[in-house]
Amino acid sequence: MNSWKDNLRRIEPYVPGEQSQDTDIVKINANENPYPPSPKAIEALQAFNADGLRFYPSADATPLKAALAAYYGVGIENVFLGNGSDDVIALSFQAFFNSDKPIVFPDITYSFYPVWCRLLSIPYRTYPLDDSFRINAADYREPNGGVILPNPNAPTSIGEGPDFVRMILEENQDSVVIIDEAYVDFGGVSSVPLTKEYDNLLVTGTFSKSRSLAGLRIGFAIGSKALISVLEAVKNSYNSYTVDSLSIAMGIAAIEDDAYFQSTVRKVIATRTATTAALRERGFTVLDSATNFLFATHSQCNMRELFEYLKAHKVYIRYFDLPRIDNYIRISVGTDEEMALFLHWVNEFLKEKRS
Amino acid sequence: MNSWKDNLRRIEPYVPGEQSQDTDIVKINANENPYPPSPKAIEALQAFNADGLRFYPSADATPLKAALAAYYGVGIENVFLGNGSDDVIALSFQAFFNSDKPIVFPDITYSFYPVWCRLLSIPYRTYPLDDSFRINAADYREPNGGVILPNPNAPTSIGEGPDFVRMILEENQDSVVIIDEAYVDFGGVSSVPLTKEYDNLLVTGTFSKSRSLAGLRIGFAIGSKALISVLEAVKNSYNSYTVDSLSIAMGIAAIEDDAYFQSTVRKVIATRTATTAALRERGFTVLDSATNFLFATHSQCNMRELFEYLKAHKVYIRYFDLPRIDNYIRISVGTDEEMALFLHWVNEFLKEKRS
Repeated sequence: MNSWKDNLRRIEPYVPGEQSQDTDIVKINANENPYPPSPKAIEALQAFNADGLRFYPSADATPLKAALAAYYGVGIENVFLGNGSDDVIALSFQAFFNSDKPIVFPDITYSFYPVWCRLLSIPYRTYPLDDSFRINAADYREPNGGVILPNPNAPTSIGEGPDFVRMILEENQDSVVIIDEAYVDFGGVSSVPLTKEYDNLLVTGTFSKSRSLAGLRIGFAIGSKALISVLEAVKNSYNSYTVDSLSIAMGIAAIEDDAYFQSTVRKVIATRTATTAALRERGFTVLDSATNFLFATHSQCNMRELFEYLKAHKVYIRYFDLPRIDNYIRISVGTDEEMALFLHWVNEFLKEKRS
Repeated sequence: MNSWKDNLRRIEPYVPGEQSQDTDIVKINANENPYPPSPKAIEALQAFNADGLRFYPSADATPLKAALAAYYGVGIENVFLGNGSDDVIALSFQAFFNSDKPIVFPDITYSFYPVWCRLLSIPYRTYPLDDSFRINAADYREPNGGVILPNPNAPTSIGEGPDFVRMILEENQDSVVIIDEAYVDFGGVSSVPLTKEYDNLLVTGTFSKSRSLAGLRIGFAIGSKALISVLEAVKNSYNSYTVDSLSIAMGIAAIEDDAYFQSTVRKVIATRTATTAALRERGFTVLDSATNFLFATHSQCNMRELFEYLKAHKVYIRYFDLPRIDNYIRISVGTDEEMALFLHWVNEFLKEKRS
């Protein structure tokens, strides 16, 4: 017998990271920025004419595109906007990855890539990171239906230089190559300039990390007019108005306040450097981070235990129960005060283990 | 030879309605609310702790779900939220319409339905509205892969009663039935109570019309736990954080301010009644509207000409160059002042035609 239940989509849902309502926790588990958004963005919010919310936003969010185009030195026609970079990348998969050949990405990377492939019935294969968790550019030479790589990669935190991306592009001139730059502002090298040389390169970014606006949901992509126009067509076949009016106003102010942006990025990098050194002093192996988080392990301790211990003491970090990285932890870089508290409980944990 | 261009998605983009940057126009072309959002929603915006935007929103926007659940008398597990009702419906198509049989909807209806079908490779067929632009419930009896109907329908403005929806449900117990209630608050009859009887019924709604928050992008759906949990799984495989923190805060305040909501809806209905009468006095045929817009024609005038004439005089209405309705216009209900200006230019147009 037929039933409407036969046609329900069966899918293993992606499980988002833990969100606690506690306000007295140290929340260094979601790679959020420890500093508030730009005061200019907050002013834009306060000055916003809320009566105007009765109108739909600009469908292509032109004023925010113009601010990003000026910032990156590209044309407005080279900028795409979405409801967070997850929205931008999910639309990009639909726009560009329509081959019978598998798309390719690393075995250890942003966990949403295989989820989108399953949702959208896109075949994929992964190439393993090498033993030091680096992406081996030479792997990305076989014919494929597209390439997606985060640079810096997550959760490894490692950034690769411009030669790396150029090598991938040279070997993949028949595929669209997406470089996911969610974390690039914390010390990575952006491939945006390469979009002028390679029409098949799309670079994606987000306001959720370096711009302290995770609560708003603004993502973007930069690429050739050929790519952006297809992305716009797919988006306009899905949801015409994805970026709301308040996000447009605050996003513009955040981009324009470069001094504040530079100063918060510098603070995060300084804290990252100090925390890396402190963890290494305590016997941890910490990968060299080009992001706002650290990826670390300890040869004499169980990282899942450390994760649970810290959680019991209201310090929330991230642990992934996945092959190859199941004795690693990911720690977002908080304020110096937050990292001091984190290190305090790490010390206590190590003491207990040794006694 | 292979090229990355071979795998770009080829799609006819949906073209959103015209947006003018002019501030001195009468904008009655997008079914926006002529009144601002609830003062309580604006207070919520002003009281919002903008520093907190550095954090991701609640992934399932629980507090706003709770407000909607209380308003509609359902459980939190019966509420789904998205980035506008277009997002909600596009996700619903992916969640529920996975049959080889075509989904069904009227020939004259919301123009996004066939666009989503093409984007998502969902087969569809349409049933023609009858000569008075009513949906014939008896058509919806053949086996199908799903049913989607707006009630009230757009752009016809006609609302059908609860017996109509119940009849559709009785005949379609093997399909998911989506009733799109974007306009229901202006005088339609909501099918939300029927979701308690029919597990296969999903009702969708939006904050963009009756709640004056088109600029924010908040849509929702109400249905059985069986439907909502599949919708959540698909959404969490696409984009975990679709509703931003400001929308959650303002949305709650808008729902809770029922007195303001009732008063703006009453004003829109009063203006609609007066405008309908005024147009009929001038020889127009105006369908009985249960929405915040009017659908009208005039046996002695060309509606495309009227549309162009009004636009030249800075009154923006909507004209659809589509079979069966290409001599109709759609007029959103504005303030009394806006409708007076609209009627003034209608009078001038009619004078010119007669002279």
